[in-house]
Amino acid sequence: MAGNSIGTQFRLTSFGESHGEGLGGIIDGMPSGVAVDLDFIQDELNRRRPGQSAIVTQRKEGDRIEILSGVFEGKTTGTPLAFLIRNENQKSKDYSHIKDTYRPSHADYTYDQKYGIRDYRGGGRSSARETVARVVAGAFAKLFLKEEGISFTAFVHQIGHLKLTKAYAELDLAKAETNVVRCPDPELAVEMENFVKEVRKDGNTVGGAIQCVIQGLPAGLGEPVFDKLHADLGKAMLSINAVKGFEYGSGFDAVTMKGSEHNDTFNSDFSTQTNHSGGVQGGISNGEDIYFNVAFKPVATLMQKQHTVNVEGKTVEMEGKGRHDPCVVPRAVVIVEAMAAITIMDHFLRAKSYQ
Amino acid sequence: MAGNSIGTQFRLTSFGESHGEGLGGIIDGMPSGVAVDLDFIQDELNRRRPGQSAIVTQRKEGDRIEILSGVFEGKTTGTPLAFLIRNENQKSKDYSHIKDTYRPSHADYTYDQKYGIRDYRGGGRSSARETVARVVAGAFAKLFLKEEGISFTAFVHQIGHLKLTKAYAELDLAKAETNVVRCPDPELAVEMENFVKEVRKDGNTVGGAIQCVIQGLPAGLGEPVFDKLHADLGKAMLSINAVKGFEYGSGFDAVTMKGSEHNDTFNSDFSTQTNHSGGVQGGISNGEDIYFNVAFKPVATLMQKQHTVNVEGKTVEMEGKGRHDPCVVPRAVVIVEAMAAITIMDHFLRAKSYQ
Amino acid sequence: MAGNSIGTQFRLTSFGESHGEGLGGIIDGMPSGVAVDLDFIQDELNRRRPGQSAIVTQRKEGDRIEILSGVFEGKTTGTPLAFLIRNENQKSKDYSHIKDTYRPSHADYTYDQKYGIRDYRGGGRSSARETVARVVAGAFAKLFLKEEGISFTAFVHQIGHLKLTKAYAELDLAKAETNVVRCPDPELAVEMENFVKEVRKDGNTVGGAIQCVIQGLPAGLGEPVFDKLHADLGKAMLSINAVKGFEYGSGFDAVTMKGSEHNDTFNSDFSTQTNHSGGVQGGISNGEDIYFNVAFKPVATLMQKQHTVNVEGKTVEMEGKGRHDPCVVPRAVVIVEAMAAITIMDHFLRAKSYQ
Amino acid sequence: MAGNSIGTQFRLTSFGESHGEGLGGIIDGMPSGVAVDLDFIQDELNRRRPGQSAIVTQRKEGDRIEILSGVFEGKTTGTPLAFLIRNENQKSKDYSHIKDTYRPSHADYTYDQKYGIRDYRGGGRSSARETVARVVAGAFAKLFLKEEGISFTAFVHQIGHLKLTKAYAELDLAKAETNVVRCPDPELAVEMENFVKEVRKDGNTVGGAIQCVIQGLPAGLGEPVFDKLHADLGKAMLSINAVKGFEYGSGFDAVTMKGSEHNDTFNSDFSTQTNHSGGVQGGISNGEDIYFNVAFKPVATLMQKQHTVNVEGKTVEMEGKGRHDPCVVPRAVVIVEAMAAITIMDHFLRAKSYQ
Repeated sequence: MAGNSIGTQFRLTSFGESHGEGLGGIIDGMPSGVAVDLDFIQDELNRRRPGQSAIVTQRKEGDRIEILSGVFEGKTTGTPLAFLIRNENQKSKDYSHIKDTYRPSHADYTYDQKYGIRDYRGGGRSSARETVARVVAGAFAKLFLKEEGISFTAFVHQIGHLKLTKAYAELDLAKAETNVVRCPDPELAVEMENFVKEVRKDGNTVGGAIQCVIQGLPAGLGEPVFDKLHADLGKAMLSINAVKGFEYGSGFDAVTMKGSEHNDTFNSDFSTQTNHSGGVQGGISNGEDIYFNVAFKPVATLMQKQHTVNVEGKTVEMEGKGRHDPCVVPRAVVIVEAMAAITIMDHFLRAKSYQ
Repeated sequence: MAGNSIGTQFRLTSFGESHGEGLGGIIDGMPSGVAVDLDFIQDELNRRRPGQSAIVTQRKEGDRIEILSGVFEGKTTGTPLAFLIRNENQKSKDYSHIKDTYRPSHADYTYDQKYGIRDYRGGGRSSARETVARVVAGAFAKLFLKEEGISFTAFVHQIGHLKLTKAYAELDLAKAETNVVRCPDPELAVEMENFVKEVRKDGNTVGGAIQCVIQGLPAGLGEPVFDKLHADLGKAMLSINAVKGFEYGSGFDAVTMKGSEHNDTFNSDFSTQTNHSGGVQGGISNGEDIYFNVAFKPVATLMQKQHTVNVEGKTVEMEGKGRHDPCVVPRAVVIVEAMAAITIMDHFLRAKSYQ
Repeated sequence: MAGNSIGTQFRLTSFGESHGEGLGGIIDGMPSGVAVDLDFIQDELNRRRPGQSAIVTQRKEGDRIEILSGVFEGKTTGTPLAFLIRNENQKSKDYSHIKDTYRPSHADYTYDQKYGIRDYRGGGRSSARETVARVVAGAFAKLFLKEEGISFTAFVHQIGHLKLTKAYAELDLAKAETNVVRCPDPELAVEMENFVKEVRKDGNTVGGAIQCVIQGLPAGLGEPVFDKLHADLGKAMLSINAVKGFEYGSGFDAVTMKGSEHNDTFNSDFSTQTNHSGGVQGGISNGEDIYFNVAFKPVATLMQKQHTVNVEGKTVEMEGKGRHDPCVVPRAVVIVEAMAAITIMDHFLRAKSYQ
Repeated sequence: MAGNSIGTQFRLTSFGESHGEGLGGIIDGMPSGVAVDLDFIQDELNRRRPGQSAIVTQRKEGDRIEILSGVFEGKTTGTPLAFLIRNENQKSKDYSHIKDTYRPSHADYTYDQKYGIRDYRGGGRSSARETVARVVAGAFAKLFLKEEGISFTAFVHQIGHLKLTKAYAELDLAKAETNVVRCPDPELAVEMENFVKEVRKDGNTVGGAIQCVIQGLPAGLGEPVFDKLHADLGKAMLSINAVKGFEYGSGFDAVTMKGSEHNDTFNSDFSTQTNHSGGVQGGISNGEDIYFNVAFKPVATLMQKQHTVNVEGKTVEMEGKGRHDPCVVPRAVVIVEAMAAITIMDHFLRAKSYQ
């Protein structure tokens, strides 16, 4: 229970460090007979890839996937899908300066406390580079769920003070993928892009929020007590690096609402007139869209001088080296989708046991 | 994987329906040799008990616990702790009017979609009465963790528009248990109480938020990838009935922050000067307080007329019967603490495997 | 992971001690809509019940089941089935003499080593009385699987040197339930009964073996690597008190066989001419009967004087008190069937995820 | 729950097919700070490697391990250990003749029933080549447990009618590794070798048995109910390809024994004078040696003509091609040890949670 697996019936176990041989994982529980669209999987990886635009980290990684098992003549066989993405552009010497230093708001100190040893190169296992495995598993889940008419669309909802004000239903979400920020409002996207560039110029970083919409889900998915559908989605999102909060449907706005405002009245086909519930009632999907927001903190590595301590508790001055994102949300969009797809896939397969 | 269990090394499996024989659970993984303070456990149950004040449901339940196994001569033996709380004050006929009706924003429709059958009396398994088992497991976890110096303190942070503005460190949290609302600011508590009474008079309900602080936790607990400490806390909270959101540390406020503001600078003893991190770095505790907020929606059952549909999709008019809370947060405080204690207990025992 | 649960999609968690309040469990994952035949469940319990004949323990227990949850209007609802069997005939003072003594080949010493505390009354949790919960879960599994045409038939295959020589296909297995020994050969059954009485007269005990046949299983159940169908059956059997060995199909006889003898030739309908495979190939059912043998050691409690040590390591003399079986296999038949049904039920539900 | 993982606190997830890119796995839960002795790991792989002697399959595989993660500066970091062994000597065209044929007593038919698709090359995932991953995980477990004084020694106990008659305590077990058969009695080993050669000359195969001894285990490991130490060992062994039976301690011999013979009398230091219990009481280790036997069936692939059916059920004649073992036990010795080490490692870490 060392926590490197997620899911039950569809389970990803991931491995790898930022500056080790590579990263990857094993997907156990992928149904057989699914055509493996490698181009789609690679496209998904490219949405997360470093170096894809001027506002993300400039580390050069091809992030080429090698599938090691579980595919025969282009189709999944039902056996484990193992995959590997080799690291190509490690610059480990960029990190020698932090070997004995605990960077503020990084996991250096906590890893040392837990393990007594730490691969300090690029944060080792604590690097967000680990999420590459999630994107692959999410892509496999999407391949299967697409056939069931289920789609996942995430986009940047907020960066710093710049926030989308329209509801997702009023927007053309496809536009999110037409700009480097991944915001479906093109004008706001430009503002966001300029803001991120400004922040980066200062050697600073900034937080952001992503919204995700799941559409086409049938009613009846999810387990009603501890493994509520939204609880598993929440855990999946909170397990992504830098995430600080999760809300679905009305979310934190529900706190100030009255029941008479919040209740979603049924239509005669059991759809609802409003969707404050966010597509889930009692932990089980009701057939409406599921939508949720995910809050990301600003990246902890700054290109500014900071004071911190070394492993002996002595104050030292440090300044970020290496290649870092000034704001993670543009690249995190596909990770949010992937974690959503992994979670829904798991519950989709679990639900089949009852039908 | 029907989802009625939570935890790995310390695991609660719960059972029961609102109007069945009773509710209870089995705790597997409780360490041996712990003195079982039954008064403490009953006190915790009393904090959740219906009928405890004028602003909560008036259902009369003693919520008396019977421990069925796992205790010998007053101490835990390391074998499963099974417990039972019998229902005493079922008024199932209060629910005959909803037998064929789907109440808005309840789980009636989704249970029917999932199971094809539904115990409609009081919501059956979907009732928040299920949380009684969580409180018991939380109490056992607290008994163990108290010896380790770890404490859990939750309190009402917001009801409707009435919100605590001070940080928890500036408040005397013990005062929360001195008023029926469970807010540590006595003046605000009075306002909140009056507000809830007003809402109830209208036959309406209102949302709220709870904050929880975990203190005394050592550094090094939590698993770094999927089972991040805050991800498991988030899932535990989101699994509580009516919860719509979870944030820890800086939470959603992090979205608008810069890295230079957000980073927590180390002191020479590895404590930090600020705690935007909320006590967790990279999914692992760093020895600072863990604190988080939980958002609750307004109760869906209204004592007002509402339009809804029956199982055939025909529109019907309904009005709540039975006994219901106008606002769940005063009673949910102990549930939040319990879920926090269950989660920390699990990670505490998991961490021992590495030490 | 304290080991009181078995199964994944259909999971039993059991609790209880021999001389505590009672025993029981929670079944999570029972499909909804199954008619609960309480008479059948009670009949199954009666097959395991102490005091049922002259050759078993004379402890008087009604073993009456109370179902606490998960049933509504006579049908399962898909929510957890909790059940309780209260102890009625504890004679705990029979055990005061062993409070400070480690009985040979009992779990007294190992429980003390593991837990540092021990409910010594009747062996506490280590008593085979725990299996009452397995019989209940097995009965629920049988209720479901009967509708799928799947049956479970166990019988006594050997007691001491007295061994069935015919293959199960040549016997009328229904006859097993017509005699107190539960051997389908009535003449051998009489010999076995007399032998057990003789052994008991000496204050001694004797081992035995049970064979179990599973019929009507479709091809395609089981997971091919670690959770092979026969591996899970083996674990389930080895988890029963006093079991020392498990073999399926050709079993240990395969050691001396040539491949040319052992291979099962296919018929044109994919059935096989022989069944050395025991109904499983590569961990997956092939549609033939599954059959296996389970070896039980002689009961460790003797009504003879034995030398042993107390908790300080000093030699003491002891003689069994209490009420014990001279041979466990007649009562264990239904336990073997129950564990087989639990295992098959779990794989049946797991397989549905792929179909 | 597709069954490609084993263990809880120390968990192996394996992947790979006989004629795919390669095989490997992820070990999750390996403690940090363990020196990784790559020579030892490779030596273990060499004990399982094809082509190592004249009496095993002549497939040429270097079975070179590449460790992809979890090691830093020669030590484990506590993060997942991923490893890969590339296939080098696939001769997939050897298998084109079985593309549409179901080989007797192979998993061809059952895989098709389960998955509807089958990688027929060398049996795909059902090949015993999968066990290479188990050997690696076993080697890591041994590296850790060696430091705790725990050792694992398996050896060939029987091939066909040729059986070791001495108890393991009377033998020099180290001699097992001095002959190609891996039997600790050198004279019997010669007989066995000649017998296997004879069998192979006939194009036939033969079964065998392996005994394994675990020494140095402390008392107190194992969970008392479903996850009994011997039940988990049994499952681990039964999950190895071609295994038909498992017995520990007195095993099937217990069936004919009296309690007075079978009971193990305590010494004053709580060791026992005999060890019919096989080192486990009530599912928990008692500090004595654990020993058990594992029965293997004869390999199903014969170099003789056999009748079988094709996927349409038509009778066809076939003869084995490819490179196969006439008897699996010499190569399976290290697999048995590995599965024992994985199981004990898991329980060792689980037990630490209670101490």
